[in-house]
Amino acid sequence: MIKQVSHLGMAVKNLEEAREFYRSVFGLESSEPIIGGDGTIRVSMVRVGSTLIELLQPIGSEGVMAKFLEKRGEGFHHICYDVDDIHAEIASIKAAGLDVLGDPKPGAEGMSVFLHPRGTHGILVELVEKKE
Amino acid sequence: MIKQVSHLGMAVKNLEEAREFYRSVFGLESSEPIIGGDGTIRVSMVRVGSTLIELLQPIGSEGVMAKFLEKRGEGFHHICYDVDDIHAEIASIKAAGLDVLGDPKPGAEGMSVFLHPRGTHGILVELVEKKE
Repeated sequence: MIKQVSHLGMAVKNLEEAREFYRSVFGLESSEPIIGGDGTIRVSMVRVGSTLIELLQPIGSEGVMAKFLEKRGEGFHHICYDVDDIHAEIASIKAAGLDVLGDPKPGAEGMSVFLHPRGTHGILVELVEKKE
Repeated sequence: MIKQVSHLGMAVKNLEEAREFYRSVFGLESSEPIIGGDGTIRVSMVRVGSTLIELLQPIGSEGVMAKFLEKRGEGFHHICYDVDDIHAEIASIKAAGLDVLGDPKPGAEGMSVFLHPRGTHGILVELVEKKE
């Protein structure tokens, strides 16, 4: 079962410019950048009420985010939903015929996995089972 | 000031298929479709915890959503933020040099306006001042 939206991932070219945009135009503060994605992205979180926006800037030109930006430009990248039990969710999603991209991996928030947009009406979906 | 995310707009080709997908795969119910956008879209809302996902299906081939689908395919369309005072927000956004697309218009939720993605790091942004 999907419980709620964990965050929205947005691809940006320059994290400092994007953070300054959210601060100065929308009045929204963001967290200090950290390195993620096996060293291929820099990440900062913007809190908007009860929602988190994850700003994602590629490092170098070889990672997944760099290739996304090259192909699609800046913009929406993925939506992440909280689930109770990621293994149960993956089983039911595979039974429905969707493409699950690899096995769940441990991340900052917990175990997470991605679903290919071709099975989800065009949306790259991340599922995360948060640590207790 | 941006207060919170009001909803996320997702473009879909077939609203019934998309609603069935969210129901059967994610366990998320959606509202009965209504006609919106001056008769050019059918809309259904999916509640995910405290977040609303607005599924948007074009009617005919001439509206803005039909052209979006033709160009980009299914997927993320826009993010809508709640604001306290839409006119004050528009003034400060224009002062920051962003493109505001037309004047605010009355909608189901309240007065709303869109910001062009070229000024917002690639995201089509809707601002809404909800009715009391």
